[in-house]
Amino acid sequence: MATIKDSVHDHIEVEGVAEALLDTEPVQRLRHIKQLGTVQLVYPSANHTRFEHSLGVYHLADRALDHLGIDGVQGERIRAAALLHDVGHGPYSHNVEEVTHRHTGKYHDDVGELLAQGEVGETLREHDLDPERIAGLVAGEGQYGQLVSGELDVDRMDYLVRDAHHTGVPYGTIDHERLIRELTFVDGELVLAEGNVQTAESLLLARALMNPTVYQHHVARISKAMLRRGAERLLDQPDISAQQLRRMDDHDLLAALRATPETSEVARRLFTRDLYKRAVWAELEAVPEDVVDADVETLRDLERAVAERTGLAHEEVVLDVPERPSMTESTSRVMVSGEMRQLGKQSPLVSALRTAQKQQWRLGVYVPASETDRAGRAAVEALGLDLDGALVSDVRPGVTATLDEFTD
Amino acid sequence: MATIKDSVHDHIEVEGVAEALLDTEPVQRLRHIKQLGTVQLVYPSANHTRFEHSLGVYHLADRALDHLGIDGVQGERIRAAALLHDVGHGPYSHNVEEVTHRHTGKYHDDVGELLAQGEVGETLREHDLDPERIAGLVAGEGQYGQLVSGELDVDRMDYLVRDAHHTGVPYGTIDHERLIRELTFVDGELVLAEGNVQTAESLLLARALMNPTVYQHHVARISKAMLRRGAERLLDQPDISAQQLRRMDDHDLLAALRATPETSEVARRLFTRDLYKRAVWAELEAVPEDVVDADVETLRDLERAVAERTGLAHEEVVLDVPERPSMTESTSRVMVSGEMRQLGKQSPLVSALRTAQKQQWRLGVYVPASETDRAGRAAVEALGLDLDGALVSDVRPGVTATLDEFTD
Amino acid sequence: MATIKDSVHDHIEVEGVAEALLDTEPVQRLRHIKQLGTVQLVYPSANHTRFEHSLGVYHLADRALDHLGIDGVQGERIRAAALLHDVGHGPYSHNVEEVTHRHTGKYHDDVGELLAQGEVGETLREHDLDPERIAGLVAGEGQYGQLVSGELDVDRMDYLVRDAHHTGVPYGTIDHERLIRELTFVDGELVLAEGNVQTAESLLLARALMNPTVYQHHVARISKAMLRRGAERLLDQPDISAQQLRRMDDHDLLAALRATPETSEVARRLFTRDLYKRAVWAELEAVPEDVVDADVETLRDLERAVAERTGLAHEEVVLDVPERPSMTESTSRVMVSGEMRQLGKQSPLVSALRTAQKQQWRLGVYVPASETDRAGRAAVEALGLDLDGALVSDVRPGVTATLDEFTD
Amino acid sequence: MATIKDSVHDHIEVEGVAEALLDTEPVQRLRHIKQLGTVQLVYPSANHTRFEHSLGVYHLADRALDHLGIDGVQGERIRAAALLHDVGHGPYSHNVEEVTHRHTGKYHDDVGELLAQGEVGETLREHDLDPERIAGLVAGEGQYGQLVSGELDVDRMDYLVRDAHHTGVPYGTIDHERLIRELTFVDGELVLAEGNVQTAESLLLARALMNPTVYQHHVARISKAMLRRGAERLLDQPDISAQQLRRMDDHDLLAALRATPETSEVARRLFTRDLYKRAVWAELEAVPEDVVDADVETLRDLERAVAERTGLAHEEVVLDVPERPSMTESTSRVMVSGEMRQLGKQSPLVSALRTAQKQQWRLGVYVPASETDRAGRAAVEALGLDLDGALVSDVRPGVTATLDEFTD
Repeated sequence: MATIKDSVHDHIEVEGVAEALLDTEPVQRLRHIKQLGTVQLVYPSANHTRFEHSLGVYHLADRALDHLGIDGVQGERIRAAALLHDVGHGPYSHNVEEVTHRHTGKYHDDVGELLAQGEVGETLREHDLDPERIAGLVAGEGQYGQLVSGELDVDRMDYLVRDAHHTGVPYGTIDHERLIRELTFVDGELVLAEGNVQTAESLLLARALMNPTVYQHHVARISKAMLRRGAERLLDQPDISAQQLRRMDDHDLLAALRATPETSEVARRLFTRDLYKRAVWAELEAVPEDVVDADVETLRDLERAVAERTGLAHEEVVLDVPERPSMTESTSRVMVSGEMRQLGKQSPLVSALRTAQKQQWRLGVYVPASETDRAGRAAVEALGLDLDGALVSDVRPGVTATLDEFTD
Repeated sequence: MATIKDSVHDHIEVEGVAEALLDTEPVQRLRHIKQLGTVQLVYPSANHTRFEHSLGVYHLADRALDHLGIDGVQGERIRAAALLHDVGHGPYSHNVEEVTHRHTGKYHDDVGELLAQGEVGETLREHDLDPERIAGLVAGEGQYGQLVSGELDVDRMDYLVRDAHHTGVPYGTIDHERLIRELTFVDGELVLAEGNVQTAESLLLARALMNPTVYQHHVARISKAMLRRGAERLLDQPDISAQQLRRMDDHDLLAALRATPETSEVARRLFTRDLYKRAVWAELEAVPEDVVDADVETLRDLERAVAERTGLAHEEVVLDVPERPSMTESTSRVMVSGEMRQLGKQSPLVSALRTAQKQQWRLGVYVPASETDRAGRAAVEALGLDLDGALVSDVRPGVTATLDEFTD
Repeated sequence: MATIKDSVHDHIEVEGVAEALLDTEPVQRLRHIKQLGTVQLVYPSANHTRFEHSLGVYHLADRALDHLGIDGVQGERIRAAALLHDVGHGPYSHNVEEVTHRHTGKYHDDVGELLAQGEVGETLREHDLDPERIAGLVAGEGQYGQLVSGELDVDRMDYLVRDAHHTGVPYGTIDHERLIRELTFVDGELVLAEGNVQTAESLLLARALMNPTVYQHHVARISKAMLRRGAERLLDQPDISAQQLRRMDDHDLLAALRATPETSEVARRLFTRDLYKRAVWAELEAVPEDVVDADVETLRDLERAVAERTGLAHEEVVLDVPERPSMTESTSRVMVSGEMRQLGKQSPLVSALRTAQKQQWRLGVYVPASETDRAGRAAVEALGLDLDGALVSDVRPGVTATLDEFTD
Repeated sequence: MATIKDSVHDHIEVEGVAEALLDTEPVQRLRHIKQLGTVQLVYPSANHTRFEHSLGVYHLADRALDHLGIDGVQGERIRAAALLHDVGHGPYSHNVEEVTHRHTGKYHDDVGELLAQGEVGETLREHDLDPERIAGLVAGEGQYGQLVSGELDVDRMDYLVRDAHHTGVPYGTIDHERLIRELTFVDGELVLAEGNVQTAESLLLARALMNPTVYQHHVARISKAMLRRGAERLLDQPDISAQQLRRMDDHDLLAALRATPETSEVARRLFTRDLYKRAVWAELEAVPEDVVDADVETLRDLERAVAERTGLAHEEVVLDVPERPSMTESTSRVMVSGEMRQLGKQSPLVSALRTAQKQQWRLGVYVPASETDRAGRAAVEALGLDLDGALVSDVRPGVTATLDEFTD
């Protein structure tokens, strides 16, 4: 048994298949992938990695299994899945996932292939575990998959507390011990036991507050969009495949961006925090539906249109259109007066959060700092934005304050 | 200058009039009044007092003044008001306030008389401060009264963080430093600066989660109702006036309850945590309007009616009907795109919280543990409760779990 | 099983005999006894009680048992002893223990009688546990008594962390999780496993730093001495016996002090923090040996001598002579290279701490603030102090700063 | 003014020259240099960087200046020095400093050249600050240099608290607020005010406990020695100069190690935590004086001798001989009874810590895991170790536990 000291959960005991997996390359690689990617450019202390998060998820899974009385091979499977749940992440975690997905068709939780091969596959088989089943758990399949990837999963519990600890933003400080103690299975569904409507709400609210303050902070979004753009340019090069990119770690990607002439400028900007600024920061209602739902090709065309009108190179205009807001946690289940109820039906907060999330949605256009005024006007025209809702930099001074920000 | 170490804010520097006030009897008395009254029977670590809370409020007021650039006599006034804001509290803080109010017409923030007389009055006058103006600030009057008692006051910021620290319930962990840094006056109104919709929401949400989990936990409510009942009996005695009761501290009240034959049993029960249990725990919609809005006399009559039907003494039946839910924070103000907006209009969460609060409202009937079944049935009849919404103990097993509870 | 939320250890699960003991009067009484007595007059947040500390000790004992693989009836015995270890405390914990010991011959850990009788005795017997054996464990007897009361006991681990949490002084923040994980029995001795010299030292150092800063802070000592004096006067009254005093709680003692004319002044002073000040604060080497080792009668005579020379009433002169420094932890055992070694022999820090402790020893003479100068001079003569080492207030300005102090 | 959220000090306000310096490349580069280098292989959460530490040191310097009443240009100089004090660090902080020093003659605090040139030089001059004077402060010169680099400097205060926060090891949790509040200048010397012997000791003790547990943990030492060996090999290559190596960041060094055939194996080992193990772990008294004081060439010869006897490549034998123990803090000054005293003379702990440090000193010989036995025996002979004190792996089982360790 290995005992590892963690800044969030204190001592974590790793044993069984998890201890054997700990030393494999795909798990150790997670030491070199930051949990929050470019968020570190907003919150300088946020340098924690997927490695320590994976240990935390393993630890909470272990406690949940203990609480739920699950042991034997089923327990080993779930513990393995917990420790391995993030090995599919590319460099900078979610930051370039969209790009690699476009080329490989795989998201970070599609790990069937990864788990079957190499050291990990061997280790699993040595412990009589079927890699495919573990991959299924990582993908949230089956009754027990809910523990690893679902609306009440231990992944979320760990990252909220851990991200709060490392950013210094207290909103993620949930009562994870209580959450785990109240988990129970009813008819094969993972639910919170009687008396936990507030417990369920607290998880939702923590995420609702961390989202705009941390995960979607506009500086994190700008740097993430720049990084994504850099990754796309890298893939235009003959010698780097999307599959390779996906297996890079943070160091590799930064090194590749620096070494490639087409991306050395974006590397320099990211490295020295000399970031683009917002030319446009538009609310959902100000953006035409076809722009919100545009595919990548259309977005590139729109960028080019803005660039042309402004006399900028295409490289210098980044259009950042998030997905439409959605909030799946509304289907978290909690027992109320003996019945299993969906939290979304029980709690008036859930629909309010959905509305709040819609309000917080923003389309961004990012350009070099000196060009925000001109590019803002050009983008309003090119995208057909509704001026009233489109918070263009030169039209509405002070716009950059619509989101919580510590530095611009 | 005195420097005092606080478990929440670390070092607190007290100077000027506040330092002189620190040693007066009315302020030192707060060392003997628990911040959360009977909540300590649910969360054993919650033994913090109004004294340390008052120091914390003084400290945050001082930081806010520094941030807002308010100094001179105005600053001294506000600091004095911050330190003194709770001297009007009776024993067990809010727990018996209703009782003393009925007899004296005064709530804890009605401190005009208290501040004018004795050591406090002298100290204030020695520092050229008018006690009446300080009392006005404590009551939330004027522009600066908002800092001490308003929807964005430092009182709330301190108590949420402090109560979280001492109960161990993390929900109150707000970012008070940020809240204070974002305070600003616009047209004489205290508001949060641009970019702080989430900051304002976080304060609301913290309170919304602490409320059912801590402040209104049913065991805290039961013991509070028993204490209130004891206080009423004490006032039936010839030798204790409501005015005297109001100036007791926690020790005095406990001692008086023990020494008085009519209340020694309730004292014993509170002392050994041998509390009544819920016979009824009814949602708002299950309770007839005239019961919700009944005055004290009517409630006593109803208790007697339940007692008679059950064959209990009147003493053994406690009917606990909270005020109708209300949530004044909805008028917190925050700047959005250069305009001052009411949070209630800006944030969809506010009305959801109002709904949630209504859902959490409960009428309770508390009786000795062995009598819950019979008393529950009797109460349903006597109060005219709608059986479907009235969670009577024998009708709906598991009812005690509708609120978050660590022990019953 | 009851689950209780604690501000230090988060969720504590109480079951078996401990759950049954929880509701007995002797355990509930601990809610009304402050862990640190008058230390709260220095650190206002230090209002935690022996109740929550007892829960904490129970919790750590439970973890230690789990780690050591001790279960069955032996485990129940130890858990019971852990929860009950402080029921023998009188009001204000250690503050008046010396007084009650003089009259009853009992210290707080002499609980044989207490555990045999009443609710506790019944509960223990119902669970087939022998009260006498539990009392033996509380007194530290036998192999397993070391867990409850010994040099590596869980009592110390809990109070260091808890006192740090509540005072805000970080020095007590030990790694209690690690300490418990490294406990092991070798030849019936409780020791720390190989590789834990620093772990053992850290426990010692934490206590060495907390001692002068918190436990022996001079304001705590002054108020404790005043309280002790008050308790002695109470026992001069015909109607209060030492046995009764020992079973009071904090409220009772304060109420008795207030109600008794002979002690109402000391009650007022303690209540409003209008404390005596130091007239003398003398190092060990400045004090004649026979004063250091004097018995209570001699000390009273010396007080009277000082009072006479100064024209004060005996009541107004308090002579405070701590026991000679000793440090028993030096015999903590730790495994080094396969051998069990005494920490005192292994670690050069231990003897240094003994020397430091000797340096920190101080004899105090406390009198009303206005009389410190005259009384200081009188005490130097009456006690035969060596002026060079006797830090008399008027001789050495700034003397009050020799100990860490936040307020005087 | 920029406000930055820090996980340790909460909000940090950066203004004046510091704000301008924040965006320069040499400061932003610190984002890519881990504060604790390879310690992250022992404590997985220890991924914090020199960037956030530099912000913390700036923040504490700012508070100290405020407390000491230092402002104007002197204040700006000190703040600039605080923010810049670590820009001279090479990759992996102290880990390869010895190597680069051998080739460049420069340690990390020799920053005269760095500060004079480029963006930093320009920025300083624009703010009318002389780079040379700032470099002097960084090197600890003059009265004010003591604040930045001295025995009571804010650098140490920040790193102890920060390293504790990120490793999860509580020993570094000092009361930094108190330390800063008690700083004062007496005759041009930075000292702690009256009443702070314990405060001074606490700083020393924190470091004394963090040292073996964190900074000198044997796994950190092994990986650091392997990294150092890798860096030396890199410098054997024709195309990398020591000056270049010194300006790399962590990514660059890792990338270079991977890309260079001679070092790709050590890169792989470090990356996957497939580390060498200890063949020898010898106490100071077991090592001949000439080995303790040997120069680099001699050490290389000794490695080769061990390698030859064992049949290993020279690459596979790493001899790690730390400097002789020394503890400069013993000259920290603190006021006692009106006199300035050296802590080393006042506190018996200081000399004890010096002895403890000597006891903790270890010479290590590290080789691939399978070779520890043979290499251990060979090293004993080649180095002339005294077998009794030389804890060779095969001679003394359990040796790996002589230091606190969470994993081996």
